[in-house]
Amino acid sequence: MPRNDNIPAPAVRRLSLYLRQLELFHAAEVPTVSSKELGETLHLSDAQVRKDLAYFGQFGQAGVGYRVPELIARVRRILGTDRKSNVLLVGWGNLGRALVSYRGFAEKGFEVAAVFDNDAAKIGRTVSAAAQLRVRPVADMPECVQALGIRLGILAVPAQAAQAVVEAMVQAGIRGVLNFAPVPLHVSGDVAISSVDLAVHLEQLSFQLTTGTE
Amino acid sequence: MPRNDNIPAPAVRRLSLYLRQLELFHAAEVPTVSSKELGETLHLSDAQVRKDLAYFGQFGQAGVGYRVPELIARVRRILGTDRKSNVLLVGWGNLGRALVSYRGFAEKGFEVAAVFDNDAAKIGRTVSAAAQLRVRPVADMPECVQALGIRLGILAVPAQAAQAVVEAMVQAGIRGVLNFAPVPLHVSGDVAISSVDLAVHLEQLSFQLTTGTE
Repeated sequence: MPRNDNIPAPAVRRLSLYLRQLELFHAAEVPTVSSKELGETLHLSDAQVRKDLAYFGQFGQAGVGYRVPELIARVRRILGTDRKSNVLLVGWGNLGRALVSYRGFAEKGFEVAAVFDNDAAKIGRTVSAAAQLRVRPVADMPECVQALGIRLGILAVPAQAAQAVVEAMVQAGIRGVLNFAPVPLHVSGDVAISSVDLAVHLEQLSFQLTTGTE
Repeated sequence: MPRNDNIPAPAVRRLSLYLRQLELFHAAEVPTVSSKELGETLHLSDAQVRKDLAYFGQFGQAGVGYRVPELIARVRRILGTDRKSNVLLVGWGNLGRALVSYRGFAEKGFEVAAVFDNDAAKIGRTVSAAAQLRVRPVADMPECVQALGIRLGILAVPAQAAQAVVEAMVQAGIRGVLNFAPVPLHVSGDVAISSVDLAVHLEQLSFQLTTGTE
């Protein structure tokens, strides 16, 4: 399957950061920004900003900079978040509940449209009364993925169940998995996995405190 | 306050990844690894691995590679996670509950030793019966930070409360904050903030799926 391999992963990651920053400028009713202004708040040089955005086409105008609403729309289109995406979630524990109500997802165009768990005590429970969403058994996943056109899934099950569940997700047609289980996952085929290792962030903070007092 | 500014942040981030990988090698009872083996699983060149580790001193031996248990111990020492660290958590909602039971923290040496919330209905609730841990009011934070020697805090409150709470954390003596609220935080002084924007991960997956089908 063809991929845009020419764009380095760090540039794609920075695209999300540019988008956050642009949304803040937009909320503050700033109409245009220069690459210098966009980079400053993220501690990046203006050259870096221009280089990153150049991977995706020409955006700015000399002497004017970037028009904020226009650049927001184009970055969202590049990221594929210009339209609402249905995502599914597996694992109706504390983390699953927190993720379903996480405001950041909906704001960025992701809607949790289906929730699965294999615990009989959880199946049938109400996730969202407004959305008429209930916890469904994992066996319903393939049918649901197809009916709702879901391609992204969030994995929030305990570590020991994660590998079996991710295989079921891939079999059901999921192409991208956001993994919260603190274990490495192995999938065959063309499936993207992004693992969130929350302890890494604490380690990084710990390092900063260590060097800060040496 | 002096900081080790010579070490680029990406190298420090990769240190956490090396540590994960080394722990997997150790679990598989692999006694030594080469920089090539260590880099391969992370899609990094052996030169990159050697360069990163060289920032922190000389570790490997020509022809032998790195002794896995020794390198694990040294990386943990560098990160400041060779001893157990007490951390506190503010916000006893779904996310807070999920984080307290997140296995990955304890595995990496972080123990949630105090939990705070300002909701009268939550204060006094049992967090962990084994650890005799109960939810305490935010006003107790300064005393608790001092008594338990806590320097790292996890912020898991709603977005609209985050700024006020982070200020209370800093005032109480917290020097590093892991922020889950999807808002930018402003703190004065020498406090490190690491914000976890979960939607960024979904955006990155979304981008990979978009380019995968173009």
